[in-house]
Amino acid sequence: MKFSVKRSELASKLNIVNRAISGKVIIPILTGIKISVFENQLTLIGSNSEISIKTILTADKTKNLVVEEAGEIVANANFFSNIIKRLSSDQVEISTEGSQIKIVGGKSDFTVSGQSADNYPQLPRLDDANTIAISAVQLTDIINETIRAVSIQDSRPLLTGIHFIISDNQIKAVSTDSHRLSQRITKTAIANPADVVVPSKALIELRGLLENVTNLNLQFDRSQLLVDLGQTTFYSRLLEGQYPETDRLIPADSTTHFTIDASQLSQSLDRASLVAHQSGNIVAEFSITGSKLVLGTAQSEVGKVLEELTISDFTGEDLKISFNPDFVRDAISSINEGKLDFSFTTSLRPFVIKPNGSTDNSKVQLITPVRTF
Amino acid sequence: MKFSVKRSELASKLNIVNRAISGKVIIPILTGIKISVFENQLTLIGSNSEISIKTILTADKTKNLVVEEAGEIVANANFFSNIIKRLSSDQVEISTEGSQIKIVGGKSDFTVSGQSADNYPQLPRLDDANTIAISAVQLTDIINETIRAVSIQDSRPLLTGIHFIISDNQIKAVSTDSHRLSQRITKTAIANPADVVVPSKALIELRGLLENVTNLNLQFDRSQLLVDLGQTTFYSRLLEGQYPETDRLIPADSTTHFTIDASQLSQSLDRASLVAHQSGNIVAEFSITGSKLVLGTAQSEVGKVLEELTISDFTGEDLKISFNPDFVRDAISSINEGKLDFSFTTSLRPFVIKPNGSTDNSKVQLITPVRTF
Repeated sequence: MKFSVKRSELASKLNIVNRAISGKVIIPILTGIKISVFENQLTLIGSNSEISIKTILTADKTKNLVVEEAGEIVANANFFSNIIKRLSSDQVEISTEGSQIKIVGGKSDFTVSGQSADNYPQLPRLDDANTIAISAVQLTDIINETIRAVSIQDSRPLLTGIHFIISDNQIKAVSTDSHRLSQRITKTAIANPADVVVPSKALIELRGLLENVTNLNLQFDRSQLLVDLGQTTFYSRLLEGQYPETDRLIPADSTTHFTIDASQLSQSLDRASLVAHQSGNIVAEFSITGSKLVLGTAQSEVGKVLEELTISDFTGEDLKISFNPDFVRDAISSINEGKLDFSFTTSLRPFVIKPNGSTDNSKVQLITPVRTF
Repeated sequence: MKFSVKRSELASKLNIVNRAISGKVIIPILTGIKISVFENQLTLIGSNSEISIKTILTADKTKNLVVEEAGEIVANANFFSNIIKRLSSDQVEISTEGSQIKIVGGKSDFTVSGQSADNYPQLPRLDDANTIAISAVQLTDIINETIRAVSIQDSRPLLTGIHFIISDNQIKAVSTDSHRLSQRITKTAIANPADVVVPSKALIELRGLLENVTNLNLQFDRSQLLVDLGQTTFYSRLLEGQYPETDRLIPADSTTHFTIDASQLSQSLDRASLVAHQSGNIVAEFSITGSKLVLGTAQSEVGKVLEELTISDFTGEDLKISFNPDFVRDAISSINEGKLDFSFTTSLRPFVIKPNGSTDNSKVQLITPVRTF
């Protein structure tokens, strides 16, 4: 194998595949990146067996890439990437001699040990894949809206993923850690029905790849997700099992309702959260009396805080309700809108946060109260 | 106690005293900041028993501070500072009721637990202090030049400090971890002789306070350093004992010499260090043959690197010498000049790095080679 490549191009391609490289892999060869050059094309593959990323660079007139001899090798991902990052030259020449990789750039001359590409696992192949077209903006929005409510406990593995329900011309994405729930419904082109759970870690890495992308295709079979981003292809294993039914959890009615400025509430919650964390009792309380809203914490050994908040469009009954302030802050960040509608029934039933004026369930953040008595 | 203060002023004063607050203190009250208001002046004190910082804010026409009732209290440093940081208002009102502290800003109303200021330790008093005037730029330069060679091992506590030898009209500052040595001699106003060792941790915090300061006074007695920065006073315990004699360690002659561009060498050392750390053998080698310099690492299981470097003013004999590349990088950062002179005797004797053209020992970085055979 022998090729020369523009250093900045190679470095940015390495950044892409390094998203799939994990510090803790069971298969030793997965600490490496598979580098292949064939017919004027450089292919890099990184994988941690949960997710895999492949990206290609094609030789063209700008001479970003000049292939002299085809071949394949596996290079240690961190070590190789750090070398490329720290070379002083614009162009870098890479060649192999047996399992040794020579990297030459400027006056630097590296020889590093590689591994045979024969032992590198094959990329997944999808059977009878279901394809759905979506814009990068839409997918980023779905992930941002649902990622925070995903469970971080491994006791119920399915809840560590986001549930995608594709039907007709919409994607419904739902996440829940059983204390809170996020739902985002997005209109898309007509697609075949599908029901899959994608690990949240995969979606976080995928989101990182969407920045310079406009449109993409999602493909699913029973066990894999493939995302075609053009030069880059992203693969993730799907979580197996039946995700719990969540539609029935979202209340249809409410008895108390108000509208509030998101940034005002978020700052007040920051302060309440500060007191809650200092006391070790992560609970805050809304106290609604005659259209006046007070956010506060219980009196603890370290102290307490009370704040009066400005609300509008108040309807319904007085209420006291306790909750985890961090969950409400997360919900506000997830919705990412200036004004929010809060709807409550009783102090023991989940309450709902939606963008102001929303009349459907396309953006829902549901939070279960904390019982304090 | 009752006063109102401009929030941003209080926050920046808290940032100052928080430099003395440590997560691991033995005396519980030192997790707090002592807040005192007397006669139109607010005083804040933070301490970790090694260092203490006092800073004052005076009531003036701009009404940054309005004192209504004198008094003292100790507030939890992190909790109180975080509350002040997150309040939404420009002004904040602070008062006490027994050991409770009320903090009111905007619509937020905090009540937090404080501790009696009676239990807070007294600030050190210096006996027969020796005073020396110095500019903040000079002191920053001394610290930057010597801090990296300080020992991080507790086995020889004195070496964890910087040795200041004040005589006539100069300060000589020396640090060594017994593998390398840094020396900086600075001309100052006439001062009485003194010989003290200041803990490096104290000097790092002190450096952080020098940014908006022009001139300052250092005062020493046998056990304490006091730095008068105007509104802020910094105290540090001194290290006790006889610092080793270091003058004799700096070689007077050399048999091989060259001049090199600091940034070129630093980048090459970055790459050599990368290979050295990957292989676990933190050694690089200069190989000087007929006025040609090659920097390289030994061949290891992970690989090796070789780089030819451009040097000038070469004189003397060919040489191969092995060293810790991180120490040379640190030395280059410490000297902080564009061109450097390297002087060697044999491959077993320490070598010296100075700014290009330096004919005295006012800026010296000394590095002991690594024996590789």
